[in-house]
Amino acid sequence: MKKVNVAILGVMGSVGTEILKVLEERKFPVDNLKLLASKKYAGREIIWNSLKYVVEEVTKDSFDDVDILLSAVPSEASKIYTPIAVEKGVVVIDNSSAYRYDENVPLVIPEINPEDVETHEGIIANPNCSTIIALLPLSEINKLSLIKRIIASTYQAASGAGNKGMEELERQTKDYANEKELEVKAFHHQILHNVIPQVDNFTENGYTKEEMKMVNESRKILHNKNINISCTSVRVPVLRSHSVSMIVETEDDVSVEKAKELLSKSKGIKIVDDIERNIYPMPKDSSNQDLVFVGRIRKDLSGNGLNLWCCGDQIRKGAATNAVQIAELLVSSSNESSDRSC
Amino acid sequence: MKKVNVAILGVMGSVGTEILKVLEERKFPVDNLKLLASKKYAGREIIWNSLKYVVEEVTKDSFDDVDILLSAVPSEASKIYTPIAVEKGVVVIDNSSAYRYDENVPLVIPEINPEDVETHEGIIANPNCSTIIALLPLSEINKLSLIKRIIASTYQAASGAGNKGMEELERQTKDYANEKELEVKAFHHQILHNVIPQVDNFTENGYTKEEMKMVNESRKILHNKNINISCTSVRVPVLRSHSVSMIVETEDDVSVEKAKELLSKSKGIKIVDDIERNIYPMPKDSSNQDLVFVGRIRKDLSGNGLNLWCCGDQIRKGAATNAVQIAELLVSSSNESSDRSC
Repeated sequence: MKKVNVAILGVMGSVGTEILKVLEERKFPVDNLKLLASKKYAGREIIWNSLKYVVEEVTKDSFDDVDILLSAVPSEASKIYTPIAVEKGVVVIDNSSAYRYDENVPLVIPEINPEDVETHEGIIANPNCSTIIALLPLSEINKLSLIKRIIASTYQAASGAGNKGMEELERQTKDYANEKELEVKAFHHQILHNVIPQVDNFTENGYTKEEMKMVNESRKILHNKNINISCTSVRVPVLRSHSVSMIVETEDDVSVEKAKELLSKSKGIKIVDDIERNIYPMPKDSSNQDLVFVGRIRKDLSGNGLNLWCCGDQIRKGAATNAVQIAELLVSSSNESSDRSC
Repeated sequence: MKKVNVAILGVMGSVGTEILKVLEERKFPVDNLKLLASKKYAGREIIWNSLKYVVEEVTKDSFDDVDILLSAVPSEASKIYTPIAVEKGVVVIDNSSAYRYDENVPLVIPEINPEDVETHEGIIANPNCSTIIALLPLSEINKLSLIKRIIASTYQAASGAGNKGMEELERQTKDYANEKELEVKAFHHQILHNVIPQVDNFTENGYTKEEMKMVNESRKILHNKNINISCTSVRVPVLRSHSVSMIVETEDDVSVEKAKELLSKSKGIKIVDDIERNIYPMPKDSSNQDLVFVGRIRKDLSGNGLNLWCCGDQIRKGAATNAVQIAELLVSSSNESSDRSC
């Protein structure tokens, strides 16, 4: 396999750190590796694949000789550096929401719409974490019968706010145990022993940006603008795995048996659904691995749909792993056709 | 107001303890008070309203001279003592699910169906905690247009498993902070930093008993067997307030404005919905008080219904306060008509 020059932007963040791990685990064919971050991290040393790397401050000159940039910085920073990198011929896999709705930017979950990678013009967007986790099982059901409606309520981990989110839950846990006052910085409110029905900022229709990502990104990834979607996104005191409670309605009824049969063979999914032994997906079990766990699969008692529950690691399949899988698609596509730059 | 002889069965449990508090706070007209519990608690002293009471072991002879029994024991124990008390002419307000579906047992939320109290034949059932919290706002929307469908996902506190549930979350919090192994006893799985998509046991249709309570009890309380209801009940690491994410569909569309206008005047409800200032109901804020907080009120983007989020204290409005309110209805009805025993 052809080796490529890879850069990671935001390498000191929770997703950047995990991208490094995933590249190593999946033996991604890295030729040169460049670790980029903001000025304050410049000079830090990181061991990757038994070699020492030094973190560099990102500048407009950081992208020479880079083939693929895995960008794990917020939208504002992505909007600065992505165009510079694209201008230099780099393919950017962007973890932020900056370009997700651009018509010429494919939004890709490799198990679902890998072919969309081919249409890129320099940028490929990595979808929202909850959307990736929810769509992995839903896209399979969509194969049995077209989805008409999705109703979701999420249970999102502190990791969605990055390292500072996880650190805040850890710190509040310790401060509570030591009867200290709880400090609130990463979230709008205390997260320990609480749930917060707000993830990201509110939009004009009363939904949060996070809830609207589930709506708009699901439609784009499934190539169906007619799916009706409603979501309530809630932060819960869990470290790094998101859960979603969903009802899905399809054009024709899908039986529980058919759904389970298909999901049991689907890539990236593990059915965890043995209620007689009180076994079902839980964030505690789905953390630090790549599969989306699906369970509590049952007929929706209020309509003709299916009711299901899934959990997945927000930092891995919800971000880092999905981004590296997109990079793998680029490399294999570039190997298949030597005319096409990755 | 006529004073009545009150007994509390299960007075050492989380709900029993709270019933005592609520009786005092609401100045319930208690003549004699009898505190009943299992043998192991007999002889314990409790101060109530500045007087000392001694907990007695419950026996078949415990109910002489009792007018109202507030029973806060599990179904198995209720099935033993409720018939004995009724036989002696006591009116039993039962917090368990033992009699909730009996045709001659009214299931009452005083703000919603107070008139049903009149039909009792000795037993009045106190509804399931999540159902009380969800129905308080839903019953108001039902006044604007008949509810056709309810889709709910719950975020239920540890208190639903009683004192041992709350103690387990507290203990796991401290053990985690002290890097000790977490002991799992009250729940099927670790509750700290986790969510568990199971509350109560599973039934044959793949739903839990807790989920089916929301279905069957909502229909009984709203006197409408045709409402389609689907629920996913999830335990979250919160101490004592339940939250519910809901979509409600009605025969005619109900606007957000109309719903807010009515809810703002409704008994037992507080609208907490100022998203511009990141204010919405949270279990941290709705604990240790009686109102159900309602917010995130918005049009369901996937259909014609409303999407809303509510939180309420599981031990208070979800159990103890509702039971005492039922007792108040009995006393006031008995005062209105001296022919009718309370």
